[in-house]
Amino acid sequence: MEVTTIKRIAVLTSGGDAPGMNAAIRAVVRTGFYYNLEMFGIYRGYEGMIQNEIKKLESKHISHVLERGGTFLKSARSTEFRTPEGRKKAFENLQKHGIDALVVIGGDGSLTGAHLFYKEYGIPAIGIPGTIDNDLAGTDLTVGFDTACNTAIEAIDKIRDTATSHDRLFFVEVMGRDAGFIAINAGIGSAAAATLIPEKKMPIERLVERLKARTKAMKQSNIVIVAEGGKSGGAAEIAEKIKKQLPYYDIKVTILGHLQRGGAPSAMDRVLASKLGVAAVEGLLQGKYDVMAGVINNKVVYTPIAKAIVGSKEVDEDDFRVVRILST
Amino acid sequence: MEVTTIKRIAVLTSGGDAPGMNAAIRAVVRTGFYYNLEMFGIYRGYEGMIQNEIKKLESKHISHVLERGGTFLKSARSTEFRTPEGRKKAFENLQKHGIDALVVIGGDGSLTGAHLFYKEYGIPAIGIPGTIDNDLAGTDLTVGFDTACNTAIEAIDKIRDTATSHDRLFFVEVMGRDAGFIAINAGIGSAAAATLIPEKKMPIERLVERLKARTKAMKQSNIVIVAEGGKSGGAAEIAEKIKKQLPYYDIKVTILGHLQRGGAPSAMDRVLASKLGVAAVEGLLQGKYDVMAGVINNKVVYTPIAKAIVGSKEVDEDDFRVVRILST
Amino acid sequence: MEVTTIKRIAVLTSGGDAPGMNAAIRAVVRTGFYYNLEMFGIYRGYEGMIQNEIKKLESKHISHVLERGGTFLKSARSTEFRTPEGRKKAFENLQKHGIDALVVIGGDGSLTGAHLFYKEYGIPAIGIPGTIDNDLAGTDLTVGFDTACNTAIEAIDKIRDTATSHDRLFFVEVMGRDAGFIAINAGIGSAAAATLIPEKKMPIERLVERLKARTKAMKQSNIVIVAEGGKSGGAAEIAEKIKKQLPYYDIKVTILGHLQRGGAPSAMDRVLASKLGVAAVEGLLQGKYDVMAGVINNKVVYTPIAKAIVGSKEVDEDDFRVVRILST
Amino acid sequence: MEVTTIKRIAVLTSGGDAPGMNAAIRAVVRTGFYYNLEMFGIYRGYEGMIQNEIKKLESKHISHVLERGGTFLKSARSTEFRTPEGRKKAFENLQKHGIDALVVIGGDGSLTGAHLFYKEYGIPAIGIPGTIDNDLAGTDLTVGFDTACNTAIEAIDKIRDTATSHDRLFFVEVMGRDAGFIAINAGIGSAAAATLIPEKKMPIERLVERLKARTKAMKQSNIVIVAEGGKSGGAAEIAEKIKKQLPYYDIKVTILGHLQRGGAPSAMDRVLASKLGVAAVEGLLQGKYDVMAGVINNKVVYTPIAKAIVGSKEVDEDDFRVVRILST
Repeated sequence: MEVTTIKRIAVLTSGGDAPGMNAAIRAVVRTGFYYNLEMFGIYRGYEGMIQNEIKKLESKHISHVLERGGTFLKSARSTEFRTPEGRKKAFENLQKHGIDALVVIGGDGSLTGAHLFYKEYGIPAIGIPGTIDNDLAGTDLTVGFDTACNTAIEAIDKIRDTATSHDRLFFVEVMGRDAGFIAINAGIGSAAAATLIPEKKMPIERLVERLKARTKAMKQSNIVIVAEGGKSGGAAEIAEKIKKQLPYYDIKVTILGHLQRGGAPSAMDRVLASKLGVAAVEGLLQGKYDVMAGVINNKVVYTPIAKAIVGSKEVDEDDFRVVRILST
Repeated sequence: MEVTTIKRIAVLTSGGDAPGMNAAIRAVVRTGFYYNLEMFGIYRGYEGMIQNEIKKLESKHISHVLERGGTFLKSARSTEFRTPEGRKKAFENLQKHGIDALVVIGGDGSLTGAHLFYKEYGIPAIGIPGTIDNDLAGTDLTVGFDTACNTAIEAIDKIRDTATSHDRLFFVEVMGRDAGFIAINAGIGSAAAATLIPEKKMPIERLVERLKARTKAMKQSNIVIVAEGGKSGGAAEIAEKIKKQLPYYDIKVTILGHLQRGGAPSAMDRVLASKLGVAAVEGLLQGKYDVMAGVINNKVVYTPIAKAIVGSKEVDEDDFRVVRILST
Repeated sequence: MEVTTIKRIAVLTSGGDAPGMNAAIRAVVRTGFYYNLEMFGIYRGYEGMIQNEIKKLESKHISHVLERGGTFLKSARSTEFRTPEGRKKAFENLQKHGIDALVVIGGDGSLTGAHLFYKEYGIPAIGIPGTIDNDLAGTDLTVGFDTACNTAIEAIDKIRDTATSHDRLFFVEVMGRDAGFIAINAGIGSAAAATLIPEKKMPIERLVERLKARTKAMKQSNIVIVAEGGKSGGAAEIAEKIKKQLPYYDIKVTILGHLQRGGAPSAMDRVLASKLGVAAVEGLLQGKYDVMAGVINNKVVYTPIAKAIVGSKEVDEDDFRVVRILST
Repeated sequence: MEVTTIKRIAVLTSGGDAPGMNAAIRAVVRTGFYYNLEMFGIYRGYEGMIQNEIKKLESKHISHVLERGGTFLKSARSTEFRTPEGRKKAFENLQKHGIDALVVIGGDGSLTGAHLFYKEYGIPAIGIPGTIDNDLAGTDLTVGFDTACNTAIEAIDKIRDTATSHDRLFFVEVMGRDAGFIAINAGIGSAAAATLIPEKKMPIERLVERLKARTKAMKQSNIVIVAEGGKSGGAAEIAEKIKKQLPYYDIKVTILGHLQRGGAPSAMDRVLASKLGVAAVEGLLQGKYDVMAGVINNKVVYTPIAKAIVGSKEVDEDDFRVVRILST
């Protein structure tokens, strides 16, 4: 597929939803209008592309969406898009609508789909990192991560009130899949006694030691942050183990769960999403295909999708050191 | 114990903590100062009374506490206070400090303790209803209930964002022990598809019918509120049953848990706690003992503790009708 | 106009908007559907009735509105509706759509309109109290008041942080028109040094005395709440006077303004609005016309509009006493 | 003053307070403890240094402060510290307590003080950028900026509810002194019709044109963000001018004011403050004096204070372009 000039761009959201996706969609569409393009929305991600759930977007569709959590284009998993037949159907639907280019907002799985699609059908595609997990290279932050951290910290602030009132030990499980970014920030931000992340195995014995030391220091209430994807198990499992070794502790578990995915996006996520929405459309117009738009050091950067996915970001060793110093 | 004039009042919080307890403590202490009394704080509830954790309170102790969740006097369970020996020790400690009267902030168990103590030792005691469960008679609202409802609703607002984006069915479990008050308000306030409360048994079949009807009406995302104390089981158990009967649904469970106990109290809880704090001290000065101060129809009312506990409030039949009409 | 059975109800919002109006509209419409009625929305209040901005409402129009501030039916002032000609046009438009009855959500001005309209044209009309000012008789609370109090208190919590850090005296002006309800609750709820409401004139000298007394007591940071409608002037004016008498104080003024009108409604406002929405439609079906549905002592009560407007609620003397005791 | 090993560090906050200052103090103190140092708090900034308001800090002083707005060490302006005599007194007080080194948390004025003090008395001093204005070079973000942006945006979200309900045009004034950073983020984050910042003069005529164009496009509600330090005047002044040219608009003004300075710090500000607190103490131990610790591109960087102040950051031209594209 050869594209001289892009006239019609479609945008979709895919994978787990993240706060700020609506702001990103709005920015994509509005930037399209700024450059006099026709803009389309594909509903329910790649599945909707296959089912032809494609609609022309107008100004009214993106009015009052910036400040809302979730994605009004909806998201869905698509097993069919993983098959060549599925992708063929999807491509044909794009052709029916005369769509020249694609903006995909989502995490690594979603960007992989865009990459594959570009390689097979040559349709100009650009990605925007939209996931609360912050586990993509090529950008300092992904859209949704900051809001999820704020949500986690606000919830833990509430839990601390009751933990302190009763001198209890709480194990709070936060999201992040295989990545400990939310956990690290929640751990630093909530003065946690300990933070367990998938990237660093902490033996139960060391956690026990630390909690014992705190008891001696008369710190009677404690929050331990546990990232969901850790190899030592989730919050409930670890709490169970600690209970056996420190039976005098009054232990409780809270799994924050899906509320971390919702809510009005933070200022930072709105600004990031807006910048990346502009950058995605301008990138396409400048012939930047098969890349992800990100922000590094306050500047827009385009990274080949293949690199953004593979070279997945790691929790900074320095950040982990900060956690350790401050929770001693 | 005969008391002509009350000079020294002690205040304690007991049982599960609730937002607004600090506001109630502050109001009690400040009202005491207004009437030129000496005020004492008993730390960690009845347990602290037995352990003699009693401290004279000054203006600085209640500065900047009104707006904070939890209770700075802390709370604890006390098995010893349930024994005559424990209560004897407790009473002796009060005498050591020359304490004339007691303000107890807590739920039914805590008020029962105050009642018993008054009957045994004649020490003037007055209760303030402090519990998120709202399950006490003699007051329209208990301190902490309104904040817990707001916390639940704000969390469910976030969950709805992601539920809608993915067309999912969420079972959200809220607190309330044996009472469905938080659940009813959360159900009405979050436009839930269904609300399950301990007071009303809803057969799984009826829930299945309703969800099927909604599917037909193209309402693809759903929130079902489940009160923790229901006989049909918690959110996880009910979700499991529904999954078997409606396998095509994408079902998730969130247990809000202890975050419902914390957080800065709402305006309403601050005002209620403040009024009741004033009323408790003025009640004692007017010779109203063994009663609970409550607010009914915007007016302070004193109810014998025995009645406040026994005649426990029920979810209004009309409220349940509203739930049913609005979630059809 | 004789109505045997009501088949088509129209709902409108009028006057200053209030959080929870959307929840009320939703409840009205959904209750209408429950009773198999046809439901209409009138946009932009009475002005829209005159301009025939009337639309049939379906389920989709009220989806995801309960949790949002403002009113999706919009509100507007209408000078034309105050004229007989305007009301005639309005009535003819209702007839065109075959509308049998009216639900009016708003404050005293809006309810006066409904009352007048009913008297002139006999169209069954019922009111729902929707105003942040809480200045209507016939209901313990008006829809929007609780949210406005929460918004005010959350803002003042923030202001207190900076006031305390700098030992400053802040004059914070809150809304409420001629009524001091928001001010009283904000004053109690924020531990204000003083609260100035329209209903009680406080001489500047007394305020000066109180502030001087606090300075002696080493209370260096202070919040003074000023209701907007006070006869002594707004926050800026009073601050100016105090500055002259207490020049050593570092004084700042914040006028909270319109942010008090917006925001997601609180749990309490959602529940209140929902109950009143159900009550309004059921009231009409039971032949209750020219009344306002309210909640008194947790029960739905219908009050003739004429009484709800005239016998306007007053700030409770007891509440003002609480303010005085707690801010000493 | 020659320092072989640093044993006693004092920390102070100075200038306008910012959310996250408490988190920074806590991190400084806790890191000191980690390295077995004695830690001191200087109350009320440089003024307190002159008045010898210096106190040894222990673990309990920094418990439960991380999550609170403001600064528990308080802040104050000091004219005396600008004189050589004042600084002499201040230095002598530090000597009395055997204080070896200084951590100063504040904006450009506060850092200038540290710089001067270091030059005059050779006392090792390091700065942490703490200001909501974000107007310091040497760091991507200053502590407090992110929270202030969130506060502004949450307030504007509420204002938008009422603006939309009434089709009104709101001029919202945000803080930032001479810098437009908060305004830019608020403008992008709230889908503002226009954003006026001190760095870019926008003629009233162009604003009028844009508002007229929006009216044609049927965008009836509008938010215009005005930075406080703009040369065209504040929100009230600009609103007045627009009113004259667009009399049919229903125009309102809200000045957000000091609430932007308070509130629990955001996750990002807590993490930033914590990192910089660790970096400040470690910097001092590594002999890095007269510098400011900042974070650039997720890495801690030390910049000479003289450079951090002078080369004050500018609003990115690209960010302004994003504002323009998205508010068209």
